[in-house]
Amino acid sequence: MLEVSQRGHAMPLSPYRRLTPYADAAKQRGVHVYHLNIGQPDIETPPTMLAAVQQANIRVLEYSPAAGFPSYRRALASYYQQVGVSVTPEDILVTTGGSEAIFFALMSCLNPGDELIIPEPFYGAYTAFSVATDVRIVPVTSRMADGFALPPIEEFERRITPRTKALLLCTPNNPTGYVYSREELEQLKDLCVRHNLYLLSDEAYREFCYDSDFVSALHLSGADDHIVVLDTISKRYSACGARIGAFVTKNKALQQTAFKFAQMRVSPPGLAQVLAEAALELPDTYFDHTKAEYQARRDLMVRRLRAMPGVSCPVPGGAFYVMAHLPVDDCDRFCQWLLESFSYEDQTVMLSPASGFYANKSLGQQQVRMAYVLNCDALDKALTCLEQALAVYPGREVPVAEAALDQSA
Amino acid sequence: MLEVSQRGHAMPLSPYRRLTPYADAAKQRGVHVYHLNIGQPDIETPPTMLAAVQQANIRVLEYSPAAGFPSYRRALASYYQQVGVSVTPEDILVTTGGSEAIFFALMSCLNPGDELIIPEPFYGAYTAFSVATDVRIVPVTSRMADGFALPPIEEFERRITPRTKALLLCTPNNPTGYVYSREELEQLKDLCVRHNLYLLSDEAYREFCYDSDFVSALHLSGADDHIVVLDTISKRYSACGARIGAFVTKNKALQQTAFKFAQMRVSPPGLAQVLAEAALELPDTYFDHTKAEYQARRDLMVRRLRAMPGVSCPVPGGAFYVMAHLPVDDCDRFCQWLLESFSYEDQTVMLSPASGFYANKSLGQQQVRMAYVLNCDALDKALTCLEQALAVYPGREVPVAEAALDQSA
Repeated sequence: MLEVSQRGHAMPLSPYRRLTPYADAAKQRGVHVYHLNIGQPDIETPPTMLAAVQQANIRVLEYSPAAGFPSYRRALASYYQQVGVSVTPEDILVTTGGSEAIFFALMSCLNPGDELIIPEPFYGAYTAFSVATDVRIVPVTSRMADGFALPPIEEFERRITPRTKALLLCTPNNPTGYVYSREELEQLKDLCVRHNLYLLSDEAYREFCYDSDFVSALHLSGADDHIVVLDTISKRYSACGARIGAFVTKNKALQQTAFKFAQMRVSPPGLAQVLAEAALELPDTYFDHTKAEYQARRDLMVRRLRAMPGVSCPVPGGAFYVMAHLPVDDCDRFCQWLLESFSYEDQTVMLSPASGFYANKSLGQQQVRMAYVLNCDALDKALTCLEQALAVYPGREVPVAEAALDQSA
Repeated sequence: MLEVSQRGHAMPLSPYRRLTPYADAAKQRGVHVYHLNIGQPDIETPPTMLAAVQQANIRVLEYSPAAGFPSYRRALASYYQQVGVSVTPEDILVTTGGSEAIFFALMSCLNPGDELIIPEPFYGAYTAFSVATDVRIVPVTSRMADGFALPPIEEFERRITPRTKALLLCTPNNPTGYVYSREELEQLKDLCVRHNLYLLSDEAYREFCYDSDFVSALHLSGADDHIVVLDTISKRYSACGARIGAFVTKNKALQQTAFKFAQMRVSPPGLAQVLAEAALELPDTYFDHTKAEYQARRDLMVRRLRAMPGVSCPVPGGAFYVMAHLPVDDCDRFCQWLLESFSYEDQTVMLSPASGFYANKSLGQQQVRMAYVLNCDALDKALTCLEQALAVYPGREVPVAEAALDQSA
């Protein structure tokens, strides 16, 4: 009997995947599904980016260099310099999406069986990458009650073993929206220097900070060899389908190593690099508009969620996600029920159960991640669906006062 | 001291890479370098493919589904059906270039330490993928004297151990240009069925067969679960920079497994899928023209090579490569010398030393791979450079008759 590989068997199915058939079935029944479950924004991709591809004069669509087109690497270096990050084109490897940057980082920094410390909850695909690269994720739990701030640095230190090679941070954070402060980043940097670890910083949402300035790992000084930024244009310019990211480090040996993995796959996508390069010609005001839009959505979402009985959420300072506590028995069950058994005015909402973001399987059962990737009008309707659903969900947690009333009855 | 990973350290640098600085230096000196070293054709990408991207009405460049756009998977299934391969859209996973299809195959079929049998010489990147996936390549040497035909099947059988999980074939072959016959494929299939192995068939050059009909692994019957075709549009439509390939198998469990790796990286490139889909609208005559062009180049190259003293080569039946025996001490040294110390009318030629295609490091020293990716006029000039170079190269092998003359003098 032919078997698939054990590592293939061990690979997780995306948590979204489990709910997709229920969403499809709902649509088949004529129910409109508001997708707050994935980070696919409805924001228009800047037309000048698409126009650059349309106007490119290409006779032969050749391989690009393995590290990306020199012109794009130069333009990207200028972008980083403008945001206070001092890097050269040689510090940048263009990758096929942020995904490939994560893959290159794990392959280049860690060996099979090595340990990678990550604050949880964290982006679900990290689990898939850790299985694919045979790296062991060691979670440090951040708490909703603390707004998902960095757990005390001692919590990280305590988990360091001889197999620990790196620490992976996502700032602004997916799924929590938390933006790490300079002080928190300095603590992590010091820890990495003290214990000889890499600090991998996933900065996919770097342009979306609403209440404070963004601090990049590359803004930190004195630890250039330790720091790798994993980046992508997906969210920044609403160009998720382009698949252009970047692996950025001033560590020459590490950049050389990642380059060998880049050579293996010959080149990153060519047309998409033309698109990405055009992004760097956008006016400085581009992010003002997009940020204002996201901030309005965030404020709407937080306000409406907090007005629902039993629902609570921290105010996320960045990215475009809110993690909310819901008064239900189990969010996996609730999210399925929303799609399978509920509708309000022929509409329902798809959310991400937080269980997919925790390594500790006992955590997050009463939490969901909601992406504010729809405009305020659609978002408002989606939140009305949620509010209506919570009122009638059979597995809802009975509030203490109400429970007392029940008992007295 | 921070170290890169052992696997990163073990990753090979592409063999091209070693010679690139010498090519760059030659160009700086004003010497024109004919690039016969890489499989980057000068054939125009069909303008209708590029036009499809230009005309696509994209407001938001969203993630495509992880397995690729359904419309493209349907169109690609029709393509395979037209060439006698009976597959459905569900049997096809769209990948980021053929490279990713190779990666998914190794990850899904083999575990760390498992063995993969490959006839050598073979595509150099297989070595990189085997290091990245911790798979051990077991080569079976095919010989130039046999035109690089399949070695006797007993040679394969003898190398099968309990760790052998798959056999990887490339047909038409890179680097040899050999096109495996139906009989050879049937032998390999029977072997795979008998020993419970996967048969991975890299068919990147499937449309370029000049003297016989192409036989795909998917044309074989009775072994659907064993067979995986790794494909790409790179060479077929001269669209190397698009990065669109395919992982094709009728083995449902394997397709599901590969899909989990596909989910990890979210989606293949979006714009390039639009380009690829348009390729399937090309007229049936498209390949006639391209094949005639490649065949004329092949015939020219073989004729001129065979007219050079001490040079020999089989007639390759497909792809766009010729493996040639050169009368020199060492082709690595010769190829470097061509760039570093030689020019003829301010021109020289860059070739691939065959050492990069052999796992056995003692093989291939007197062989080079030459890609006929330039038009006949440029090719002719490049071959004149080679002819002139062989006449004056200090490390040339002295022909037997001449050596006898020397001794008698």
